[in-house]
Amino acid sequence: MLDHNKFMDIAYRQALKSYNEGGCPIGAVLVSMDGKILGEGHNMRVQGGNPILHGETSALQNAGRQKSYRNTVMYTSLSPCMMCSGTIVQFKIPHVVIGENVNFGGNEDFLRERGVKVEIMNHQGCIDLMAKFVREKPELWFEDIAE
Amino acid sequence: MLDHNKFMDIAYRQALKSYNEGGCPIGAVLVSMDGKILGEGHNMRVQGGNPILHGETSALQNAGRQKSYRNTVMYTSLSPCMMCSGTIVQFKIPHVVIGENVNFGGNEDFLRERGVKVEIMNHQGCIDLMAKFVREKPELWFEDIAE
Repeated sequence: MLDHNKFMDIAYRQALKSYNEGGCPIGAVLVSMDGKILGEGHNMRVQGGNPILHGETSALQNAGRQKSYRNTVMYTSLSPCMMCSGTIVQFKIPHVVIGENVNFGGNEDFLRERGVKVEIMNHQGCIDLMAKFVREKPELWFEDIAE
Repeated sequence: MLDHNKFMDIAYRQALKSYNEGGCPIGAVLVSMDGKILGEGHNMRVQGGNPILHGETSALQNAGRQKSYRNTVMYTSLSPCMMCSGTIVQFKIPHVVIGENVNFGGNEDFLRERGVKVEIMNHQGCIDLMAKFVREKPELWFEDIAE
């Protein structure tokens, strides 16, 4: 049984690092079911001028090539957007643990309908950090979700 | 009206470049509706050790940050996987032109149901190149689609 608090804290620290760099504060970590960290990362829109590196895709990029994801869990500070939800389904990642879906969400059912186990932690640090970011930089946030 | 043959040939040449480098032969180009190329690219699993750079996401990465994608068309040599289909929906790209869906497909309805215009060209060069690749390197192809 993985320690959700431990791994969500890693995703949260990635989000906080990105916030402190002036970027979108969303982080993620891909963990094998035996507790090994395969890759972690954060949104790179600002830092890399890169629109496809969200927390989840950044963690997957940093994990590199894997033969299979069937034995992995994705921890993400914020509920996955449609790009990242599609990625989770395509890669057949069976389990996603979400820090919060107060500030953004809506794809949880898409994931569940395709057999992904979805858990939502209501992590107060994730909620507060994201709310602060949306308040401070609404234009950057809307750009990131193509609103 | 965009010249589909012209832009699909660019996607195909990206696919061929990747094939010649030993990679997965799938390419894409993002074009504005007035015919300007915003970004092009190909699958980077082999060349970059990068599992999230498919043709479409590579083109989007190379296009960099955009305020909006509402005035763009994605040309891709192969029908988009779930990651790339989710990305197209998330980014609100309104129109996708697909080289072929003989060797891989299945997400066309997902795109159409979300308002994306989908056209399939049955481009013989794309069909033949992809078929050759799947025949020559089935393990690499199955890794790319997480089979």
